[in-house]
Amino acid sequence: MFDVIQSRLANLGISIPQIAMPVGSYVTTIRSGKQLFISGQLPLVSGKLLTTGKVGATVDIENAKKAAQICAINILAQAQAELGNLAKIKQVIKITAFVAADPTFTDIPQIANGASDLLVNVLGEAGKHTRSAVGVSVLPMDATVEIETVMEI
Amino acid sequence: MFDVIQSRLANLGISIPQIAMPVGSYVTTIRSGKQLFISGQLPLVSGKLLTTGKVGATVDIENAKKAAQICAINILAQAQAELGNLAKIKQVIKITAFVAADPTFTDIPQIANGASDLLVNVLGEAGKHTRSAVGVSVLPMDATVEIETVMEI
Amino acid sequence: MFDVIQSRLANLGISIPQIAMPVGSYVTTIRSGKQLFISGQLPLVSGKLLTTGKVGATVDIENAKKAAQICAINILAQAQAELGNLAKIKQVIKITAFVAADPTFTDIPQIANGASDLLVNVLGEAGKHTRSAVGVSVLPMDATVEIETVMEI
Repeated sequence: MFDVIQSRLANLGISIPQIAMPVGSYVTTIRSGKQLFISGQLPLVSGKLLTTGKVGATVDIENAKKAAQICAINILAQAQAELGNLAKIKQVIKITAFVAADPTFTDIPQIANGASDLLVNVLGEAGKHTRSAVGVSVLPMDATVEIETVMEI
Repeated sequence: MFDVIQSRLANLGISIPQIAMPVGSYVTTIRSGKQLFISGQLPLVSGKLLTTGKVGATVDIENAKKAAQICAINILAQAQAELGNLAKIKQVIKITAFVAADPTFTDIPQIANGASDLLVNVLGEAGKHTRSAVGVSVLPMDATVEIETVMEI
Repeated sequence: MFDVIQSRLANLGISIPQIAMPVGSYVTTIRSGKQLFISGQLPLVSGKLLTTGKVGATVDIENAKKAAQICAINILAQAQAELGNLAKIKQVIKITAFVAADPTFTDIPQIANGASDLLVNVLGEAGKHTRSAVGVSVLPMDATVEIETVMEI
């Protein structure tokens, strides 16, 4: 199982980064029974946001979707740091994708799919999850996407 | 118990529809221990949104509240599809009601009550839940309401 | 443990108020196994909102942060009413901080820190939590902050 995930990551050209530090006075992960809660992940790459601004205004679909992918990679980084390896994820239970969006931009699902597809592509069946996706007015540091996660481990 | 719920549904004139298909690359329900997570439900009736647009702008209170009711009916549809029958819902634990709202429209609770009342009217004590209700800038496909749910089964 | 918390509350000059009543047809708390879910708490003081309006527009950072602190105090009030005393909180698992914000206001984390810091200052290690913080277009009754919580008890 571990090897399968590593090989998928390699095929996708993804390396799991260092975890992103919290941008406030909270912690990154908390276990509750068999559930792992992960703080809202931003599209941070080496501590810098991949995109800022609102999709439908200053950010286009392609870049917003990439931002969601980075959020998902950061979710995996948090899980790996907490669990030791990604094979210990039994199931991604739920993600809530908050997308900073102009009120006229309605294709929120396409942006969130950037994260959802990545989780399934890396974790297989264990990556399938329930989801809410909503357009919000603004995110921390003007990030374009933030994703909250609950997993079963 | 099953009969009670069926009779309430009949009295309310509600028939549980087919489940709404995901509008992105996620699944509709995931079980985690005794908890059932249900993806954000939209006010879809036979695959078509009952209302689009923002309450306080192009959607009035009455229609937004109806949209919330439809979300709740779709939540029940998901639960029934997963559990076989609604009597297996031990407790609706939490709903988060996302309401696409003009920033000047502040009566978000009245819209969310459309869903909350329906859950209690159908499920009785088991339908009582905690709730967050927030006004967001835009929802998938310009839906007026989206509701995320966690139940105990 | 109980005394430690009481003494921290005294040092901070905080007295736990009566619980805030729901502003809609939902309940304030639900237990699910070892988890306690608490409905979105608003910055209500004696039934009146401390602040209304959006941070970055009509509300400044200091007042929005105070609003988040009041939300956290109301979270503690709900937990105390449900559990008898705050020492029964094993861990605050997650908060989601919804901040009514002008789309140009990006320092959402600073507002949410008002709540996060208070929880840790009162509960110590048990107050540490995962967090999502997002800027939304409008909150119930034009509140500036609303915070949803899951705790382990």
